Amino acid sequence: MVKCAICVHLIYSDIVQKCRDELKAIRETNPDLKPTLAIIQVCLCCYIPADFVSTQIGLNVMQICLPRQCTEDEVIDEILRLNEDSRVHGIFLHLPQSFLSRSVRNAIKPQKDVDGCHFEVFTEMFVAVVICQHVVRSSRRWIQEQQYQPWRLRPLKLQPLSPVPSDIEISRAQTPKPISQLAQEIGLLPEELEAYGNTKAKVHLSLLNRLQHQPNGKYVLVAGITPTPLGEGKSTVTTGLVQALSAHLKLNSFACLRQPSQGPTFGVKGGAAGGGYAQVIPMEEFNLHLTGDIHAITAANNLVAAAIDARILHESTQSDKALYRRLVPSVNGVRCFSPIQMARLQRLGINKSDPSDLTPEEVRAFVRLDLDPEKVTWQRVVDTNDRFLRKITVGQANTEKGHARQTQFDIAVASEIMAILALTDGLADMRARLGRMVVGSNRNGQPITADDLGVTGALAVLMKDAIKPTLMQTLEGTPVFVHAGPFANIAHGNSSVLADKLALKLVGEEGFVVTEAGFGADIGMEKFFNIKCRTSGLKPDVVVLVATVRALKMHGGGPNVTAGVPLPKEYINENLQLVADGCSNLKKQIQIAHLFGVPVVVALNVFKTDTQAEIELVCRIAEASGASAAVQCHHWSRGGRGSVELAQAVKKVASQKNNFQFLYNLQDSIVEKIRTIAQKVYGADDIELSPEAQAKIDYYNQQGFGALPICMAKTHLSLSHMPEKKGVPTGFILPIRDIRASIGAGFIYPLVGTMSTMPGLPTRPCFYDIDLDPVTEEIKGLF
Amino acid sequence: MVKCAICVHLIYSDIVQKCRDELKAIRETNPDLKPTLAIIQVCLCCYIPADFVSTQIGLNVMQICLPRQCTEDEVIDEILRLNEDSRVHGIFLHLPQSFLSRSVRNAIKPQKDVDGCHFEVFTEMFVAVVICQHVVRSSRRWIQEQQYQPWRLRPLKLQPLSPVPSDIEISRAQTPKPISQLAQEIGLLPEELEAYGNTKAKVHLSLLNRLQHQPNGKYVLVAGITPTPLGEGKSTVTTGLVQALSAHLKLNSFACLRQPSQGPTFGVKGGAAGGGYAQVIPMEEFNLHLTGDIHAITAANNLVAAAIDARILHESTQSDKALYRRLVPSVNGVRCFSPIQMARLQRLGINKSDPSDLTPEEVRAFVRLDLDPEKVTWQRVVDTNDRFLRKITVGQANTEKGHARQTQFDIAVASEIMAILALTDGLADMRARLGRMVVGSNRNGQPITADDLGVTGALAVLMKDAIKPTLMQTLEGTPVFVHAGPFANIAHGNSSVLADKLALKLVGEEGFVVTEAGFGADIGMEKFFNIKCRTSGLKPDVVVLVATVRALKMHGGGPNVTAGVPLPKEYINENLQLVADGCSNLKKQIQIAHLFGVPVVVALNVFKTDTQAEIELVCRIAEASGASAAVQCHHWSRGGRGSVELAQAVKKVASQKNNFQFLYNLQDSIVEKIRTIAQKVYGADDIELSPEAQAKIDYYNQQGFGALPICMAKTHLSLSHMPEKKGVPTGFILPIRDIRASIGAGFIYPLVGTMSTMPGLPTRPCFYDIDLDPVTEEIKGLF
Repeated sequence: MVKCAICVHLIYSDIVQKCRDELKAIRETNPDLKPTLAIIQVCLCCYIPADFVSTQIGLNVMQICLPRQCTEDEVIDEILRLNEDSRVHGIFLHLPQSFLSRSVRNAIKPQKDVDGCHFEVFTEMFVAVVICQHVVRSSRRWIQEQQYQPWRLRPLKLQPLSPVPSDIEISRAQTPKPISQLAQEIGLLPEELEAYGNTKAKVHLSLLNRLQHQPNGKYVLVAGITPTPLGEGKSTVTTGLVQALSAHLKLNSFACLRQPSQGPTFGVKGGAAGGGYAQVIPMEEFNLHLTGDIHAITAANNLVAAAIDARILHESTQSDKALYRRLVPSVNGVRCFSPIQMARLQRLGINKSDPSDLTPEEVRAFVRLDLDPEKVTWQRVVDTNDRFLRKITVGQANTEKGHARQTQFDIAVASEIMAILALTDGLADMRARLGRMVVGSNRNGQPITADDLGVTGALAVLMKDAIKPTLMQTLEGTPVFVHAGPFANIAHGNSSVLADKLALKLVGEEGFVVTEAGFGADIGMEKFFNIKCRTSGLKPDVVVLVATVRALKMHGGGPNVTAGVPLPKEYINENLQLVADGCSNLKKQIQIAHLFGVPVVVALNVFKTDTQAEIELVCRIAEASGASAAVQCHHWSRGGRGSVELAQAVKKVASQKNNFQFLYNLQDSIVEKIRTIAQKVYGADDIELSPEAQAKIDYYNQQGFGALPICMAKTHLSLSHMPEKKGVPTGFILPIRDIRASIGAGFIYPLVGTMSTMPGLPTRPCFYDIDLDPVTEEIKGLF
Repeated sequence: MVKCAICVHLIYSDIVQKCRDELKAIRETNPDLKPTLAIIQVCLCCYIPADFVSTQIGLNVMQICLPRQCTEDEVIDEILRLNEDSRVHGIFLHLPQSFLSRSVRNAIKPQKDVDGCHFEVFTEMFVAVVICQHVVRSSRRWIQEQQYQPWRLRPLKLQPLSPVPSDIEISRAQTPKPISQLAQEIGLLPEELEAYGNTKAKVHLSLLNRLQHQPNGKYVLVAGITPTPLGEGKSTVTTGLVQALSAHLKLNSFACLRQPSQGPTFGVKGGAAGGGYAQVIPMEEFNLHLTGDIHAITAANNLVAAAIDARILHESTQSDKALYRRLVPSVNGVRCFSPIQMARLQRLGINKSDPSDLTPEEVRAFVRLDLDPEKVTWQRVVDTNDRFLRKITVGQANTEKGHARQTQFDIAVASEIMAILALTDGLADMRARLGRMVVGSNRNGQPITADDLGVTGALAVLMKDAIKPTLMQTLEGTPVFVHAGPFANIAHGNSSVLADKLALKLVGEEGFVVTEAGFGADIGMEKFFNIKCRTSGLKPDVVVLVATVRALKMHGGGPNVTAGVPLPKEYINENLQLVADGCSNLKKQIQIAHLFGVPVVVALNVFKTDTQAEIELVCRIAEASGASAAVQCHHWSRGGRGSVELAQAVKKVASQKNNFQFLYNLQDSIVEKIRTIAQKVYGADDIELSPEAQAKIDYYNQQGFGALPICMAKTHLSLSHMPEKKGVPTGFILPIRDIRASIGAGFIYPLVGTMSTMPGLPTRPCFYDIDLDPVTEEIKGLF
């Protein structure tokens, strides 16, 4: 097609050379990018010399030949498809004039429209060169779009009222920005966003790849002192801090929060979207179904449970041969193993791929998981506070032929799948972890996994959307990720690694990601460091330690604080002695953070009953105890403006170098790891293992699970295992009642005392006040 | 401010008069619309004479006064808020020049930008009049947008392959249109859509109000003959029919489908998005979480269950006084009843509103639901095939203090809440139905409702998004609503009234809505007419009756058809005698439709083993049996093109007048209604009531539930109650084993035989083949 190669060379060689050079530069910096010109044509004669374009200039060419009798609509369909094709950087229509209607031309996305000069006087070659230039230009533009974009955040104005209205009233009074607008402001590309309505959107993990060379921002953990049963406001501090950073100090910041269980929303606790003027909005979306992640976990968890019991039943009622015939059926006369069955064969050491080759012994080993009904550890879940499911007997119908067994339901967020969601770093890793989950053991004591049940792929499919963090916003229009919410005792109580990673890229090097750890710092922060940071490889820059005068007074010897009962007068009137004595707990928690080499900023969450003298006393003691700073926060009543001092302190301390280190090595023995946490973090003299716990340790060592990190299941109401011991208990031996393992999530969890994994409903649950106005669709009574 | 009223009157009176006239016309046709001009200003002096605008011209004026020190961003925030405010039709900025930056001006939505002429030479009054003109114009434009918009549907091109690939391969090979594009094509407004990702969106019910004056389209029901256990393809016929109508005959059409339970997707049956080249895409989105409606139902259902058991426990362990103190607590020293408690007091005949006024007897009546644990009818649900939950004992933990009781889990779609979702016509109605649900009875035999438990508002909140139908598309890019999927035996087995109503408005008077009824016509169609159409007030125009040669041969005496076992040769080779004999069932089902006065088009769903002679025989007999038309369909292998003949027949028959009527009157006695269905529809000689059934009838009559419609729970595998009796069984007495009621959904359901409400997993469930490619995110093995 190149009619006059020499002449072309003479005339256009400089332009061609420039194109080639630019392409070379593009390829060097973006080896995965193949700049591509798509040509739509209705005949095979080539107006654009494709050979020349590809060989001389080096562009990829994609030719789409439509039949002569095709309609305008078909051309447009083709264009729309190419518009969405990320491989294509330019679209050129080589069509007869009759096809080139305005609607056909307009169908091409502007950034892909590379139409050249069509005047008759130009040679085809010249047009080709111009088009090539355009494709190169649009590739360059595409690369630019893929780069990190500085934020253009437009905060929402907040005018706090006094007295502070209810949470739902505050939430409803603020109109959130369309979530697509927020996404654009923080540099997300439209194709990285999946809107769920107008106020929530899932963000694609492909972002991590796009911004892989972008340095991370500063990583801030919000933890708390040992709390009262009422909670000391870590979520509000987290939310207030990002409102202050982003909306007032104009520093990019992201809050990463856990998704709350729906159970407590209708039970005692109410919502968990922060509170007062430091909230995630709309709070009802945050507290209800959100984007369905917990529902997906429930579905996946219960599919495993159903598979376990059905398998036990089928194995008990069928011969090896019948099981084998059903598990590896003949389809159109052919029998073959599915990939997940091949994997099981390999684990069994059977290196055969033809089902007819297996010996009867091998068939038996393959078809019989031989699960011991007494040793099934997998439990069903619901996302409802349903106390009657704490201990149940299943399988009592005749159809289950006497295979009844006792088991229980947990609340959905206690599922190991939730812990996996929180710790995984991508689809492949999540799929592998789901497959490794141990659901019980067989009659020989060998662990049986989700892979053995053949259910791994289905679990991954059920969880494919849940793995994407959900973007929402604070009351001041700053970005928030809501993702995962594992229990803080039987699991590690932190939001997801993936949300933190995405946020750290998005905020940029000078920005801040504020993430929160459940319970007191002795539990949530310890697990954040030893489990979450170890998994993610991320290094924290600063810990914000939340304290309240109320909790400090309790630690100083104040009377009991109980939910639903009015506070004793010690908590309402000034009492400097109680505060000073209680600061022992604050000091200990600061020391724990220092064990890991991370500096601490104390955030005193101020209540209206706190006096100036009390506030100053706490800040003075905190700084004397080693905190890099200690400041008061008024986010609840004032929003981000009330946390500006905290934001400034965090900014300053985060810029200092620190020496982050883990508390133990994974290669230490299980007992050693538990003892290290008990002594160094909790202040115990030693640990004491029950015989069950010792037996489990032996078993886990034998199974090769000894090198997993430790996830202590301990009360959050004391540094010790005794909830009534406040302040800094000493001289105690930490009893380890039992030990369990979440192999998929990747930790071993010693049980210190009994952990309830299913809350109950009180006599008058929250739901009495919750209602929906059928006309305005407004929700009432959520808090 | 009106400086020269007379002069203004002289100069502008004709423009003012015209504005007034137009406004009057707008108000007459749209009494709810109040055309409004919003003025943003930073001082109180009024450049636009608001008095004049409102009194002389009659526009509403909304004045927003910003403080002098406000920033440009604050002005923009205000504008963005007004942009989204549907009450505002024009925004005018009355600001000092320093505020009028380009970004401030550009913030106003074009359709709300009513800026007049600002030249110094014009008087303020003239500017005001021009602005008013603009507001009137933009109000008029707004009204036009609200009108019904003709469709501009751009179908997707389909190029069927042979042999036909797997369902998931076909689904994946087609790129769906962005759902927002489809919505625009069919005349939905952007604010009526809530996207869930790029391929699904919820549609707001406000559409019903906007298009209230738009005449409905034609209403087509797809039902089937008595099926084999393999199903005869109603969903594919439905999908193929709309593909033919919309993409090939260019007639607006909508398919309304049920959302499938996730349980069977991983069990035996696989997906339910149609099949072959007549599918809803993406099929994995259709078959998995969709937009979370079933998860919402599960959450709501199980909240009721948890509330029941917790209430029984709390009542058993507390005195009247303690219960009362907790149920009506003192908050800041004040005790008051919540609205739902006031409603309960009224039902109890206690007309008091001050908690301290109740007598001890009244307190007792109020606080004690006195639920009889033996008479709790409410069951928990999961959306998983979990056979071990068919009969269970709950409450065995020590914390439940010996209140263990036997109960069961159903699959989520068997929840009464699903039936309510399918039958409701809006939020207020749904909330009322949820409150009426009977969960059991007290020790005096009185029914106890969700309202009595105080949980109604919370249920409505959990279901607030589920009530909106989900928009998806077929393989050919034509619109589909997916909404609700109640069981077809213990419930009515039809998709939602709301989806049908929305679709009937959207397709326009000449368009078609094709909806589907579960099971055979004797069950699904009968319930569609007697329950769904009675509730909705909608009148069907034509029934499409789906038949297959396979099912007809079975009715003609062919051997058993069993899932998972190869078909006997009778079903593979031509056998005209079996076909001819089996047409008895087809004829009977046609007659059933005629009982209701609705014409029938028979759709023979052709399989590749069917011979031409068999096909012609069926069509001949069908027409001789009273079908208005009988045509063959090839949608599975050819898509909409394979159903064009069916579409033409439906179009023709639907244009004929029909005489739709119900089969029984609601005022007939329960026994009479059951007998009518048994005799006229099933062909039974009579019915026979068990003593339990008779007792229940007496109870329901006594409770005032006698006038509800009947929802028969009968096998779908025979016209009779005996699944093995094929063709047209006669001479049998229909036994009514028991009778139950769904008071919230609004029907009574007699049980004919035992109905399983919890499927099980087979030895090798579908999940063995399902997997996710972690790199491409493609799903494998769904079908």
